[in-house]
Amino acid sequence: MNAATSALLADLYELTMLQGYFEEGMDQTAVFEFFVRKLPANRNFLLAVGLEQALAFLEHFHFTAQDLQWLEETKRFQRGFLSYLGKLRLHCDVDAMPEGTAFFANEPILRVTGPLPQAQIVETRLMNLLNFQTTIASKAVRCVLAAPGRKLADFGLRRTHGAEAGMLAARASYLAGFTGTSNVLAGRLYDIPLFGTMAHSYIQAHDKEEDAFRRFAYANPDNVVFLLDTYDTETAAEKVVSLARLLARDFIRIQAVRLDSGDLAVHARRVREILDRGGLHEVRIFASGGLDEYKLQELARGGVPIDGFGVGTHMSTSSDAPFLDCAYKLEEYAGRARFKLSEGKVTWPGIKQVYRAYDSNGKMTFDTLTIKGEAEVRNALIQPYMRAGKRLRPARRLEESRQFVATEVNSLPVALRRLEPVEPYPVKVSRSLETLARAVGGPRFDAQ
Amino acid sequence: MNAATSALLADLYELTMLQGYFEEGMDQTAVFEFFVRKLPANRNFLLAVGLEQALAFLEHFHFTAQDLQWLEETKRFQRGFLSYLGKLRLHCDVDAMPEGTAFFANEPILRVTGPLPQAQIVETRLMNLLNFQTTIASKAVRCVLAAPGRKLADFGLRRTHGAEAGMLAARASYLAGFTGTSNVLAGRLYDIPLFGTMAHSYIQAHDKEEDAFRRFAYANPDNVVFLLDTYDTETAAEKVVSLARLLARDFIRIQAVRLDSGDLAVHARRVREILDRGGLHEVRIFASGGLDEYKLQELARGGVPIDGFGVGTHMSTSSDAPFLDCAYKLEEYAGRARFKLSEGKVTWPGIKQVYRAYDSNGKMTFDTLTIKGEAEVRNALIQPYMRAGKRLRPARRLEESRQFVATEVNSLPVALRRLEPVEPYPVKVSRSLETLARAVGGPRFDAQ
Repeated sequence: MNAATSALLADLYELTMLQGYFEEGMDQTAVFEFFVRKLPANRNFLLAVGLEQALAFLEHFHFTAQDLQWLEETKRFQRGFLSYLGKLRLHCDVDAMPEGTAFFANEPILRVTGPLPQAQIVETRLMNLLNFQTTIASKAVRCVLAAPGRKLADFGLRRTHGAEAGMLAARASYLAGFTGTSNVLAGRLYDIPLFGTMAHSYIQAHDKEEDAFRRFAYANPDNVVFLLDTYDTETAAEKVVSLARLLARDFIRIQAVRLDSGDLAVHARRVREILDRGGLHEVRIFASGGLDEYKLQELARGGVPIDGFGVGTHMSTSSDAPFLDCAYKLEEYAGRARFKLSEGKVTWPGIKQVYRAYDSNGKMTFDTLTIKGEAEVRNALIQPYMRAGKRLRPARRLEESRQFVATEVNSLPVALRRLEPVEPYPVKVSRSLETLARAVGGPRFDAQ
Repeated sequence: MNAATSALLADLYELTMLQGYFEEGMDQTAVFEFFVRKLPANRNFLLAVGLEQALAFLEHFHFTAQDLQWLEETKRFQRGFLSYLGKLRLHCDVDAMPEGTAFFANEPILRVTGPLPQAQIVETRLMNLLNFQTTIASKAVRCVLAAPGRKLADFGLRRTHGAEAGMLAARASYLAGFTGTSNVLAGRLYDIPLFGTMAHSYIQAHDKEEDAFRRFAYANPDNVVFLLDTYDTETAAEKVVSLARLLARDFIRIQAVRLDSGDLAVHARRVREILDRGGLHEVRIFASGGLDEYKLQELARGGVPIDGFGVGTHMSTSSDAPFLDCAYKLEEYAGRARFKLSEGKVTWPGIKQVYRAYDSNGKMTFDTLTIKGEAEVRNALIQPYMRAGKRLRPARRLEESRQFVATEVNSLPVALRRLEPVEPYPVKVSRSLETLARAVGGPRFDAQ
């Protein structure tokens, strides 16, 4: 069973609500929007990611005969309803921000419009896909900003939360500007460049470190990166210098060495010196081991001679903010704006659009959150992607999305690119949206 | 493609190392152990979970023809090596702590013994499975300890890191003592009780809240739980009281109401009073919304009349500690103990066993970390599970593991069951293990 594609990967309440809608004949058009209520403390902006997986999920959504049989066995559902579920295919419209768009609190990044049961049943999985990938891309881009000009490789698979998290973290971090991943399956599925050569165990399994280096080089002549810190980093660097002459005779080039523990700045400087003294100016230094954007920034600002980093756990779990305060909220049903008043959770009602203003240098200056269609300004961020269940265009190539992120990050106000929290980016609310909020929510609307 | 079962869900270095071992003919017996170096700051103990998934992964591991074809296209691997990979099946031995065992820093919870390439190639996925499920179970059991006598349901799927995380979090939290989950597929696959009825959107889609309640009850007569906080919690509770009479005539029983926002303690007391005044003493109160073990403890200690909780994001992402500082370390190859000296990462060498001592009340008093086979004491925690790739016993039923956890938690010293960090549980190191550590590691061994 592949959990990732099962229609049963949903909260039970989606099904019990649908049974209600089925009995009541409630299938008029509903509009749901996915948005983040509040940015995590250490995020000045977020990157919208997950649209491609969301669209694929909507395209292929269906209950299998086995699903239905099992649902019947639970005795929770009536025959007529289950027969309806068996025929259910999705014919929703989807409007969304393109993957990689920078966005802020209260701005919808995805809107689903369709018959109420169809737009409801997908809530859990859509949130699951958008929350995670947006979380990871928004963490990964901080690593990219912290280490300008350095190559970053995703090393996080061993500590991601399961298999799909490993796949989607590789994708989201590449999209955010990483150079590649260690995850072989992600390399295959998403065509992401792969990184990786040897673990400490490889060195340990050999009686002598120099034997491990030499044999690895002959077995993998096009991918020679030596891990230096199994016993003593600088001694290992000296061995690399000796070995280089032998390998050169067989036209094998040492590409890099990797440091994985200790004070990376100190070791990198010493190793650079040893390599340079040995004539190995071309051999790059790669570092890994518990890195996050703060350590990357410290090393990069210190001018430490490290050319690339393997960034694992902290990025691939977004360890300081492993989730977003996000919602998939019903905005309209049967042509009427819907709202709720639950304390601390009041939000902007209605079907919304976001417009973005830029200055003459192409830097973002402010966003306007409006009612959709109210005023046609330039730079509407939410665009059509799916109509009646069919994609309006083929999936965008990951490389294109990655390029889009690079442009997007360049257009951010410089202050927002800092790791430290800064004054929030201005998101203005249009007068008509304020009026609607007052009309439906009374004096208690207090979001923003 | 199902990422969860693919042999390519691995770090690239596993494959480049294997190509080295293949060329060198290095296939003698290797022993790897998985352990946690250091407990997260807010954990007094961990629960070992993930063994079942690890064993299933080892049993079924193989490369498909498509995998091999793609690997060949990468031009990283030689034909002979790929042909060897195609035939590779795992014949490893596995010894491990039973699922649900409480354990501490430096204690191996899983050992893989087999030909070096076989025991190496599975590193990434084994770590991925054990790290995540142990992380989640160890967070979930804190929620269970914080709210004694209350039912807890996993509501976390929307913010887990992808699909597999949602499935495994439902399983790990149930194992840790949760009562059930909202995740339908987890209910199906693991036979976990399901919870869930309606979202705010259900109320919003109806013009009147009382209509939503009534219609839901008739559509789902055996599963009537009303969500009260869409507009005004206490007003909604009054509507429930009125509706109860009508439903009773049709033999429909209201099981519970749910609160999802605001001051849960205040609302629960008011709602309890309204329900009791209306004669609805049997109707339970269920609460959800951003809960973690600290909020649960506060509510439980305050004697708030809440009978059950939906616990989502904080549990299912283990938000305060979303990963473990864990390793899968080569301990022995070709009969010789292996070690590494990398700064800050020195660990106990050799193949180990853990013995647990109990006092006369059945409470754990201390553990002893020893060299395997050195002294046969009672209560060896690491037990045989797989020999030459075959399971020694059928998979333990989840209910049994859940019962085992309950017993295990009961045997913990009382102080360790607190949410606050306490004096670490004593893990003694045997003299022979100390001697081995000094012998192979010199004076720099300083782990523990």
